[in-house]
Amino acid sequence: MMDASCVCLAMRPMLTSVSTASRPLYRRLAAEYVQAMGLGTLQLGEKMPSVRELMRRHQVSLSTALQVLRYLEEQGYLEAKPRVGYFVRDARTPLSGSLALTSEPDLSQPVQPNAQAHFVGINEHISLLLERGRQALVHLDVGGCTPPAALFDHRYLNQLVARLLREQPTLLVQGRSLLANQGNHPVFQQAMARRALATGIRVAPADVLATTGNSEAVSLALAAVAVPGDMVAVESPTYYGLLQVVESLQLQTLEIPCSPRTGLSIEALELAFQTQPRLKAVVVVPELQMPLGTRMPDAHKARLVALCTRYGAALIEDDSYGLFVEGAQPVKPLKAWDSGLGQVIYCQAFNKSLAPGLRQGWMNGGQWHGRVQMLKFAQSRNTQTLGQLVVAEVLGSPTHQRSLERLKMQLKNQRESMARLVARTFPVGTRMSLPAGGLCLWVELPDGFSSAALFGQALEQGIRIAPGSMFSNSGRYEHCLRLACTQPVDAVMEQAMQLLGSMACAQLGQAPRS
Amino acid sequence: MMDASCVCLAMRPMLTSVSTASRPLYRRLAAEYVQAMGLGTLQLGEKMPSVRELMRRHQVSLSTALQVLRYLEEQGYLEAKPRVGYFVRDARTPLSGSLALTSEPDLSQPVQPNAQAHFVGINEHISLLLERGRQALVHLDVGGCTPPAALFDHRYLNQLVARLLREQPTLLVQGRSLLANQGNHPVFQQAMARRALATGIRVAPADVLATTGNSEAVSLALAAVAVPGDMVAVESPTYYGLLQVVESLQLQTLEIPCSPRTGLSIEALELAFQTQPRLKAVVVVPELQMPLGTRMPDAHKARLVALCTRYGAALIEDDSYGLFVEGAQPVKPLKAWDSGLGQVIYCQAFNKSLAPGLRQGWMNGGQWHGRVQMLKFAQSRNTQTLGQLVVAEVLGSPTHQRSLERLKMQLKNQRESMARLVARTFPVGTRMSLPAGGLCLWVELPDGFSSAALFGQALEQGIRIAPGSMFSNSGRYEHCLRLACTQPVDAVMEQAMQLLGSMACAQLGQAPRS
Repeated sequence: MMDASCVCLAMRPMLTSVSTASRPLYRRLAAEYVQAMGLGTLQLGEKMPSVRELMRRHQVSLSTALQVLRYLEEQGYLEAKPRVGYFVRDARTPLSGSLALTSEPDLSQPVQPNAQAHFVGINEHISLLLERGRQALVHLDVGGCTPPAALFDHRYLNQLVARLLREQPTLLVQGRSLLANQGNHPVFQQAMARRALATGIRVAPADVLATTGNSEAVSLALAAVAVPGDMVAVESPTYYGLLQVVESLQLQTLEIPCSPRTGLSIEALELAFQTQPRLKAVVVVPELQMPLGTRMPDAHKARLVALCTRYGAALIEDDSYGLFVEGAQPVKPLKAWDSGLGQVIYCQAFNKSLAPGLRQGWMNGGQWHGRVQMLKFAQSRNTQTLGQLVVAEVLGSPTHQRSLERLKMQLKNQRESMARLVARTFPVGTRMSLPAGGLCLWVELPDGFSSAALFGQALEQGIRIAPGSMFSNSGRYEHCLRLACTQPVDAVMEQAMQLLGSMACAQLGQAPRS
Repeated sequence: MMDASCVCLAMRPMLTSVSTASRPLYRRLAAEYVQAMGLGTLQLGEKMPSVRELMRRHQVSLSTALQVLRYLEEQGYLEAKPRVGYFVRDARTPLSGSLALTSEPDLSQPVQPNAQAHFVGINEHISLLLERGRQALVHLDVGGCTPPAALFDHRYLNQLVARLLREQPTLLVQGRSLLANQGNHPVFQQAMARRALATGIRVAPADVLATTGNSEAVSLALAAVAVPGDMVAVESPTYYGLLQVVESLQLQTLEIPCSPRTGLSIEALELAFQTQPRLKAVVVVPELQMPLGTRMPDAHKARLVALCTRYGAALIEDDSYGLFVEGAQPVKPLKAWDSGLGQVIYCQAFNKSLAPGLRQGWMNGGQWHGRVQMLKFAQSRNTQTLGQLVVAEVLGSPTHQRSLERLKMQLKNQRESMARLVARTFPVGTRMSLPAGGLCLWVELPDGFSSAALFGQALEQGIRIAPGSMFSNSGRYEHCLRLACTQPVDAVMEQAMQLLGSMACAQLGQAPRS
């Protein structure tokens, strides 16, 4: 059996096998500190210099300083104590529930929070990749994360639509009624508010805004709280759709490091607030972060909400994947820690968990709800009523609960099988996440690997993957890729993974694994 | 029988009955020119000073100069010769197909194209009015223009949905396929491109972008061609939803006068291009302009497209009402005059003509199509497939053609009955449009009338109207209102119109009409 939280195919040699000149700056600085630890200059348990101190001492940028600390933490040399700082630990002792996932930024393009140039063109880049995928003859898609139709109970949904149209025959020909709050159906609002309450969120039904999905919701949220030129903190790596939204609104992305264990670094975010006055919003997927699959611990959630409240920034929560968390424990969204101030803008979509063809979700804009509602109405009027009623009915039904459990079980099996295939076929030195639920694996290959090259090669063979460059504006995930676990793992899939693995091995000059 | 194009309840005394001091500036200037005509200083057939000349001579703004000319034209003193200018005519000879509709701007807040302050808050204003309408116990809505469910063939639509779900059982659980162009279903694209061709528009099926409606389409179009602070020319008066879109994107509105006979003043637009470098887009409803109901003559359409092409501005065409034009003549959209340059962004929605509950439309972004498509995908991903397939099927069916003809006939009857009720019950001096199709009447009451006051009074009686202040940022339509003709004209309606009429008469100190 594999470790539940990670898979490490082989231990990577630490900071020794390459010449320092070709290493990125943060690696060289990290190596200095490792040396200092070896020499005893920095003792076990001693506090590491803070980010500010590192910036000052080495004349480096915020992101480089953060990367030094993050890298040393990930390599096991440092331990983070929330709100205090980083402390030297014994790198030979494994961390409890440790992670094997490390990120290996390519700092040939260092991340500069304010460098506008880095935030232009992600849409073109992503569109190009999607377009290449579309034009190729793809027979196996492990790039997109929407579960295939076969994993949903379409009969139940179709019967429900038929029943709704029988009971309310004029549903499709009715505009928004004067009674309905700007096109938000009271039945839908009631259902969402009730569900939210069960997870610890208090939202009045009238404050439930129906949306067509989470891109729309996050887009409205950002437009409500920021103006062009403002900055938005996002998780790194993050869902490429979010980078598209941010860019399309002419906002700037500030990528905040994410620990695969605990999610978004709250220390880094705090520093960002202190140094970036135009930082107006933070977008977070607290449960099954996309693409890492991280579940943010409750204590972190509370701190994150408090931090955003302190700095008056909007905390935009995308809670669409919380539905995929395995196990009986109830999942508590960030919004559950939101005080009376309404600092959290909550967004949830049901495309992936209920019916990808329906395009239905909802949001609550917290203290910005009025503005969100106004923007929604101005820019796309009301959301289709049929979809609202279908979702309201489905979510309350035991049939759907059973379907969702089946879906989660199937995804879990597929995810584990995919992980085994990666472990068997991908190059020595490959690492990956193994999240507690969700739709994908994040795979990190050794330095020098190009997921863009693999994307092209794989496409020629009819296989579509999602290369790491889609998940950041910084180019630091070029050696990573996202593998969807939404497809059945059959002989075709095994063959495809074998092929991907051997192409990756060839790129790195390794012999094929099996 | 009423005149087909207008109703004038009584001739308004011209420029004499009020003291000049209380008159707006443009009226005082107009009076000077009328005097000049009376004295023979300006002879019949003589060319009137140009807008520029008026601006220079009287040290007035662009909008005041335009208003002078427009007012004199509407009063019959001037005749416009396209691309040449205005000429003095005999005010006693009626214009062929003349209009009785005049606009009576309240220039206590003069329109300044660049005054940002005037473009802030229209959303709040409109939201407030809609919210008041929502909270009141409305039993008769002549404010909203969506035809009631009873005017549509819901059985046909429901059967169609049932059939589609039978034939394609996984429709609701399928995400966008890799093969479909970013969620635009090929069947829908094909159907729209074919329909467009029949009206003279050449659009490749792949360049059809499915939208949820025209607010989304126009919002995407504007976001694609303009950045915050840029200026958008709109018709005056215009659909309030457009003012909301423009404001929500932090753009500025420039209101261009509209002749009820020919639509948007092309002379005024040309001058605007010459004087406003930030003017990036023009939004036009060429057929059955909302709320005036004007049909733009084909020659005007050609000139408008040429003008926008010359100035490199996007011409955004909302062609949702062209479907409501009565008669057998095919309606040719602006886009049909678009050259190879793709200056026209074409938008069409089917909410009001086919199924208000479906939220389905499409657009083609012309030369900006790639950017529009990118924004759509970034901000709300794909549009629901079911809606696309329903619309594609319905539009091609003879059943729908018959429904649409029935709908138009019904609307025509209701519109004419409503006009008769207005003529019978509204104050002496009331004028109104009587358009060749569509969903509403634009009613203009004598100076001193407040449609905002009537809105409040009517709401107390359970009647909702749309006051003129919703249709402009300038406040110049305070004495106007829009009456929807989408409801059956029965005893309840007659009573309601009687009530509205007598409240309006009371406001003006007139005795009730009947």
